[in-house]
Amino acid sequence: MAGSIYGKLFRVSTWGESHGKGLGVVIDGCPAGLELSEEDVQIYLNRRKPGQSKFSTPRKEDDAVEILSGIFEGRTTGTPISMVVLNKTQRSADYSEIAGYYRPGHADYTFDEKYGFRDYRGGGRSSGRETIGRVAAGAVAAKLLKSLGIELLSYTKSIGPYEIDYAEFDREEILNNNLYMPDKKTAEKAGEYVIEMLKAHDSTGGTAECIVTGMPVGIGETVFDKLDANLAKGIMSIGAVKGIEIGDGMAVAKAIGSVNNDGFRMSDGRVEKITNHSGGTLGGMSDGSPIIIRAAFKPTPSILHEQRTVNKSGEDITVSVKGRHDPIIVPRAVVVMEAMTALTIADAVLENMTARLDKIIEFYR
Amino acid sequence: MAGSIYGKLFRVSTWGESHGKGLGVVIDGCPAGLELSEEDVQIYLNRRKPGQSKFSTPRKEDDAVEILSGIFEGRTTGTPISMVVLNKTQRSADYSEIAGYYRPGHADYTFDEKYGFRDYRGGGRSSGRETIGRVAAGAVAAKLLKSLGIELLSYTKSIGPYEIDYAEFDREEILNNNLYMPDKKTAEKAGEYVIEMLKAHDSTGGTAECIVTGMPVGIGETVFDKLDANLAKGIMSIGAVKGIEIGDGMAVAKAIGSVNNDGFRMSDGRVEKITNHSGGTLGGMSDGSPIIIRAAFKPTPSILHEQRTVNKSGEDITVSVKGRHDPIIVPRAVVVMEAMTALTIADAVLENMTARLDKIIEFYR
Amino acid sequence: MAGSIYGKLFRVSTWGESHGKGLGVVIDGCPAGLELSEEDVQIYLNRRKPGQSKFSTPRKEDDAVEILSGIFEGRTTGTPISMVVLNKTQRSADYSEIAGYYRPGHADYTFDEKYGFRDYRGGGRSSGRETIGRVAAGAVAAKLLKSLGIELLSYTKSIGPYEIDYAEFDREEILNNNLYMPDKKTAEKAGEYVIEMLKAHDSTGGTAECIVTGMPVGIGETVFDKLDANLAKGIMSIGAVKGIEIGDGMAVAKAIGSVNNDGFRMSDGRVEKITNHSGGTLGGMSDGSPIIIRAAFKPTPSILHEQRTVNKSGEDITVSVKGRHDPIIVPRAVVVMEAMTALTIADAVLENMTARLDKIIEFYR
Amino acid sequence: MAGSIYGKLFRVSTWGESHGKGLGVVIDGCPAGLELSEEDVQIYLNRRKPGQSKFSTPRKEDDAVEILSGIFEGRTTGTPISMVVLNKTQRSADYSEIAGYYRPGHADYTFDEKYGFRDYRGGGRSSGRETIGRVAAGAVAAKLLKSLGIELLSYTKSIGPYEIDYAEFDREEILNNNLYMPDKKTAEKAGEYVIEMLKAHDSTGGTAECIVTGMPVGIGETVFDKLDANLAKGIMSIGAVKGIEIGDGMAVAKAIGSVNNDGFRMSDGRVEKITNHSGGTLGGMSDGSPIIIRAAFKPTPSILHEQRTVNKSGEDITVSVKGRHDPIIVPRAVVVMEAMTALTIADAVLENMTARLDKIIEFYR
Repeated sequence: MAGSIYGKLFRVSTWGESHGKGLGVVIDGCPAGLELSEEDVQIYLNRRKPGQSKFSTPRKEDDAVEILSGIFEGRTTGTPISMVVLNKTQRSADYSEIAGYYRPGHADYTFDEKYGFRDYRGGGRSSGRETIGRVAAGAVAAKLLKSLGIELLSYTKSIGPYEIDYAEFDREEILNNNLYMPDKKTAEKAGEYVIEMLKAHDSTGGTAECIVTGMPVGIGETVFDKLDANLAKGIMSIGAVKGIEIGDGMAVAKAIGSVNNDGFRMSDGRVEKITNHSGGTLGGMSDGSPIIIRAAFKPTPSILHEQRTVNKSGEDITVSVKGRHDPIIVPRAVVVMEAMTALTIADAVLENMTARLDKIIEFYR
Repeated sequence: MAGSIYGKLFRVSTWGESHGKGLGVVIDGCPAGLELSEEDVQIYLNRRKPGQSKFSTPRKEDDAVEILSGIFEGRTTGTPISMVVLNKTQRSADYSEIAGYYRPGHADYTFDEKYGFRDYRGGGRSSGRETIGRVAAGAVAAKLLKSLGIELLSYTKSIGPYEIDYAEFDREEILNNNLYMPDKKTAEKAGEYVIEMLKAHDSTGGTAECIVTGMPVGIGETVFDKLDANLAKGIMSIGAVKGIEIGDGMAVAKAIGSVNNDGFRMSDGRVEKITNHSGGTLGGMSDGSPIIIRAAFKPTPSILHEQRTVNKSGEDITVSVKGRHDPIIVPRAVVVMEAMTALTIADAVLENMTARLDKIIEFYR
Repeated sequence: MAGSIYGKLFRVSTWGESHGKGLGVVIDGCPAGLELSEEDVQIYLNRRKPGQSKFSTPRKEDDAVEILSGIFEGRTTGTPISMVVLNKTQRSADYSEIAGYYRPGHADYTFDEKYGFRDYRGGGRSSGRETIGRVAAGAVAAKLLKSLGIELLSYTKSIGPYEIDYAEFDREEILNNNLYMPDKKTAEKAGEYVIEMLKAHDSTGGTAECIVTGMPVGIGETVFDKLDANLAKGIMSIGAVKGIEIGDGMAVAKAIGSVNNDGFRMSDGRVEKITNHSGGTLGGMSDGSPIIIRAAFKPTPSILHEQRTVNKSGEDITVSVKGRHDPIIVPRAVVVMEAMTALTIADAVLENMTARLDKIIEFYR
Repeated sequence: MAGSIYGKLFRVSTWGESHGKGLGVVIDGCPAGLELSEEDVQIYLNRRKPGQSKFSTPRKEDDAVEILSGIFEGRTTGTPISMVVLNKTQRSADYSEIAGYYRPGHADYTFDEKYGFRDYRGGGRSSGRETIGRVAAGAVAAKLLKSLGIELLSYTKSIGPYEIDYAEFDREEILNNNLYMPDKKTAEKAGEYVIEMLKAHDSTGGTAECIVTGMPVGIGETVFDKLDANLAKGIMSIGAVKGIEIGDGMAVAKAIGSVNNDGFRMSDGRVEKITNHSGGTLGGMSDGSPIIIRAAFKPTPSILHEQRTVNKSGEDITVSVKGRHDPIIVPRAVVVMEAMTALTIADAVLENMTARLDKIIEFYR
């Protein structure tokens, strides 16, 4: 079992089910002295809230966070930060039907096999609401990173066949459209495509991207705990992610070395990379250029479209999953991906402090 | 620092540099009673040995493994298994030049920034030889899995533009060609492409794929320690990997739900998936169908081609990396990917034993 | 920082301050299928509640636990169990004085030095109330162990000079007296001694003991994760503990081998130890005889007695710590020690399942 | 299984059996830039070597350490340090007899029960030789600490009834007598007692003590990872240890608060404790006064004295354990205790660097 704790020094322990009493997270290892309010966290949680647009599910959920520990006079104390979001509406009756069969693309079958039974209400622990704890903790990690000059920017890169045009990249646009896309025109076309899917009782996949700037050089551990390896784990652990790319990603398979290698040059007395095909890491350590990471999210599995499956009595049946579901996961997952990135980098930034004896001696002088 | 220990229950601790005295690994947590010989491990190590073909570096390295502990009368005892491969040739003089500058695409710069200095001989710890410890441990994990009916099959899927045709898939062919490709015709074309690259003083990327069959259902932990998340970490931690895909991978971004969802059906009284777009996992747990995982490897960074970089005096220079380097990383990395997959799954298989009280009670009865 | 997460497979993450909004714990890794109610946990929490006797502080605290996740239809689901105890009374004003100086025997000074400042209200995180999370989680671990036939019995062994007489040991008596002593006569004398201390504005130390029966043989890992080593850590991590003994404990230093060695004999076809000087472990693994562990708790540091200390302005001062404090820590700590023992053993019992290949093969058959 | 890895940031993985090919350790997480030679490690290993006196076993063992990785030009590189001690004499024949029965006081029975069989030669993994890896790693940790001004002093405190007189404490004397006692007269009496035991075919227990000076304030994590809790684990994990005390240890149980509390005073503008009953920690964090930790070691279990036991056929038998065994464990264990203390503190010193945001910001400026 286990599996709900993440991180080595900045450790988070998330909990909660879709239709239980609430969801939350405990952060153990946040440094003391960080100014932190419930509002800092709420801003992040609001970015994953449904009901903001015609593309996301119209269920009304407030998801108001309450911080229960670890803060004194507005600052973190170095002790665990416990955050809770209580579930307001618990209409379990809606979910009685799915208790009896395995929804395609969901974890119903594997949960039953692993644990012997499952909390079937709204997907239980494998609901998208599971990410509330991740996002709340990620908000804290992001604020910690910001105090070190490290900033994260995340957005929807593509929906179905519609991919943003970097020539049209407009950072301000991200929060202006319902799809969190930084390119207005593509967002419009993608929006129409999503509506089309909805009408066809179907859903679509997409990609999200996260850019991290201001990274010191050398963050990440060589061999197994490479920064990119840990980012891959953190982001692949988000439900629905099926592919992860750093920098040029899968495309490197077709590249040639003389182009793919990022040369170095001096710039204002500092070493810098001329290009950034590597996506900000070399040998698993940050190289000073922006970290660029992408993830592919599968189409929402809950669709009205008729599908084949089996029930718990071992009979072949066809089902159509009712309920109000987003036809696209990506826009609401953008902030989850940013949260996992922030958590992973915060942890690596802390561990990196112990890499060199000269700096340790200086620290304790 | 740290970063060279992997796993939670089946834990490996690797060590060693390209031009130090040797390389090796300690496995802590291998169950007692597994028949294990040095030959079991050597077979795996031989799959990563250079000098077998015109495509891999002609350096002669034997890489003979010695098991120093943890085995008694041919079986594992449950205590740590220490395995060592001594380095035979240590011609450090070959590498004196690269001490003074940062090779593009290598970890020279980040190592220096993180640790203050580096063992520059042959890449030191970030050499491809670092994988010896992974492969030796992976051989043990694979043997453990085999005793549970779980088998791994790995191969080169593509090199540059040449990708295998699954219609021509021939398992026997994998070890027959120097590129570890399961499709003879594609292997021939890819081979010519590699020679072309070599002549152009350049290198090429490619992809490798690993298939795991015989998986019980439910292996992997929900939320952060999903089986696919841990596989992503393990494989992304291999040097040169820039992208990871499970099942349909990045392609799910363009898929629609009604196609991407894998329906279920009954077959001989058992639940099975009709398709396997998900690549063998649902909700982070194995779903009984084969695990399918792919990785993209960047082109070998060490090329004779002239490249821009800087030296340690902070001057812009151009370099051409001498020495004999493979123009393609993938074939030798196939077994490393298989090793990381085996290590990750072995760990998950052990942890899964603690998931259900009824089975725990039965175990201790 | 960090430091509030305990365990490897049965992992608990505790949080909360004396005068914050509440305290609690998240358990990640409790097997699915364990029947669990809030009452199961409340029974344990009540054993650490103050206000039950003239010896413990008259502050009224209800400490009612609420389970927020991880339970469905009365049984654990294998997902994280979040438990919360809200603080009812938060009279921070009471504690304004101690903000300015360092109480002898408390963590005020070290907290300030480590974190730069502290939540001084009631000791903040280093208050005795910190143990609420431990006890709530321990209740779950104890119930899990009980389902495997493993039972824990804990009690006060001594208070100041008054130590129980094992000839008078009466299990029923433990919950009958305010000191949790299993020997009525000693409890009476010890009770008088405690009142004497109270009148003298002073406090006293004591010892507690925990006995674990029904242990399978072989629980615990050799070398660093010996069962006794992990128990020592778990129990030494309880505030005020300054000494830990397994079996004969410190007395082995004066023993001779021919007496201290526990011989073996056959009994009803099973191997059993003739004596139990070792306290139930051999080589760090349980040996089938009862685990016997003892801890010494220092006297309550908060006393009315005048003491020398310094204030935050760097001046020597004398203080007398007001407020209502127990003159003896042990009775309320007995259940905390039992909780840490249960958590440690539950974790070891789970890890032990992965020790032998033959049993793993049988498990997955 | 598992259990042979120790530490969180400064992590060691030990391996090896008494009569296998060798023993060793891999350190993952030693900061870069520490000057380190094989001689630094050998000095520590020599302190645990047998054959130095009439009290220790006359087996000739050189135990020469070889460092295989992690050092470049005389300094640690930040990559794993692998150290090996090869076994020279492997006379397995000597041990054929004990394969068939369970030696009292040894782990033979529990090993067989846990793993199904055992490497019975010389105790296998549970031999005293297992500590070679601990001591080699501890030597590195101690050197790291020394560069931060933290020093360790360890010695035998008592043997049987003979305990050192602190009034006669002579630091220089420790390495002058075979028992590592800092008090010449007591060492003489204790020496006679040990010879007496030897003649009686018996053995004796004793205590060792370790003092750590130069500690910064605030090292150690609150709650579970208290410095004293981790020290207790580390030291209790040494074979034969049955009791651990910090500061006044078990004696606090009889103490009263007004005496046991350590008051504070100003001294040269710094806060200092007036007394040190707490043994250098407050709330689990170092308080600036010396860390004082003690352990009780049981008498050597291998004795010529006749003892009752059972054989593997399930018959009651009596045995007399042949071979040359020290009649006292403590003198050779002193350096092991120092090693575990060094490893534990080095780890805590590294983790402490991440406690405060202001210092982290300063670090990355």
